[in-house]
Amino acid sequence: MKKKKVKGTIKTKIDKVSDSTIRRLTLYHRSLKRMEKQNIERTTSMELAESEGIHPAKIRKDLSYFGTFGCRGVGYEVSTLKRELDHILGFNKPWGLVIIGGGQLGETLIKSQSLKENNFIINKIFEKKPDQLKITTGQTGVFSINQLEKKIDPLKDHIAIIALPHREIQPIIDRLSKLDIKGVLYIASRAVNTPKNMVVMNQDLSLSLGMMTYKVLEKRG
Amino acid sequence: MKKKKVKGTIKTKIDKVSDSTIRRLTLYHRSLKRMEKQNIERTTSMELAESEGIHPAKIRKDLSYFGTFGCRGVGYEVSTLKRELDHILGFNKPWGLVIIGGGQLGETLIKSQSLKENNFIINKIFEKKPDQLKITTGQTGVFSINQLEKKIDPLKDHIAIIALPHREIQPIIDRLSKLDIKGVLYIASRAVNTPKNMVVMNQDLSLSLGMMTYKVLEKRG
Repeated sequence: MKKKKVKGTIKTKIDKVSDSTIRRLTLYHRSLKRMEKQNIERTTSMELAESEGIHPAKIRKDLSYFGTFGCRGVGYEVSTLKRELDHILGFNKPWGLVIIGGGQLGETLIKSQSLKENNFIINKIFEKKPDQLKITTGQTGVFSINQLEKKIDPLKDHIAIIALPHREIQPIIDRLSKLDIKGVLYIASRAVNTPKNMVVMNQDLSLSLGMMTYKVLEKRG
Repeated sequence: MKKKKVKGTIKTKIDKVSDSTIRRLTLYHRSLKRMEKQNIERTTSMELAESEGIHPAKIRKDLSYFGTFGCRGVGYEVSTLKRELDHILGFNKPWGLVIIGGGQLGETLIKSQSLKENNFIINKIFEKKPDQLKITTGQTGVFSINQLEKKIDPLKDHIAIIALPHREIQPIIDRLSKLDIKGVLYIASRAVNTPKNMVVMNQDLSLSLGMMTYKVLEKRG
């Protein structure tokens, strides 16, 4: 296989990159990870596009925000591009997670190979009734939600995932904002008030189902 | 309040609307639903934009794919625009859901007010060990996964949500594709092979966490 040097320098971002671009970067990263596992050395925007259902020109544009990757007509070196995306997305260093209220989800995430590969580590699970939680957590500690302030260490616990009924989410977010946690992902179908000192994101199954029904109707004409 | 007639006609779509646009439509719908509950009669692309963090021009462009809504300088009538989006996204008629392998998730979804409002009904839950499932399901039946073929009625059960370990997802999708189910949403951090006769979507917490770490790094400069 022809070896050619692939440029990959990260430019300083001038404009804020859109959420859609960041979302697509995570998709490219997922495809590159799979290719790396299959020992595929090189890929093209065409191949990447096909595996994630995105237009090849969009891939080149998305990547262009962050510098020059790949060579015209040669494509991208899989491991180099994956490493660059690791860096851009922040997967090149470990992130400590805490799960609040989602014991079952916690167990799934602890087992998730994909999270491990992206350097996410589940540090702690907080439950309303921790002694009633019947899951296998390995090294991960299970604590009462009352102990949030006592147990969370913002130097190690960077991101919280909240899986609680909607009305219980806001007070938890307010408590977390005082603890210097950097990011919160809450799973709910309603938005909450978000403190300015941390990144707050919302995962909402209703939104995915809305996309689903649109596509089902589109498919049936 | 000045009453003005708001146009809202749905044109035939010529181009395929992008996933990003559909995703944003679900966000606008969510905001409009909230406004309707708060008895807000009119809104503008500026207000809608603010509540979901999207550029106002993008909102006008997204809506323009589907016709002419609102009047320049007057904005949108909340209930009219919400009803149009109900129609576009398919929320104007009931959708039957079945949950496969996610009993806990099932319970959450059964209780979800948002799903009810969008006309989603949880019809059935399938579990590996249905008799061991300790949740409150009300009217919703709980069955063994072995009984998928026997219990699923494609006339009533339109969409399946799969929450199983990754290696168990593909066989279930293959079985569902023979049952004329219209859509499948699977929760996993790896892609599976998707039959052409149904819409298959993937919800992946790893992707959300990738966006999260990007934003945390961006916020810290």
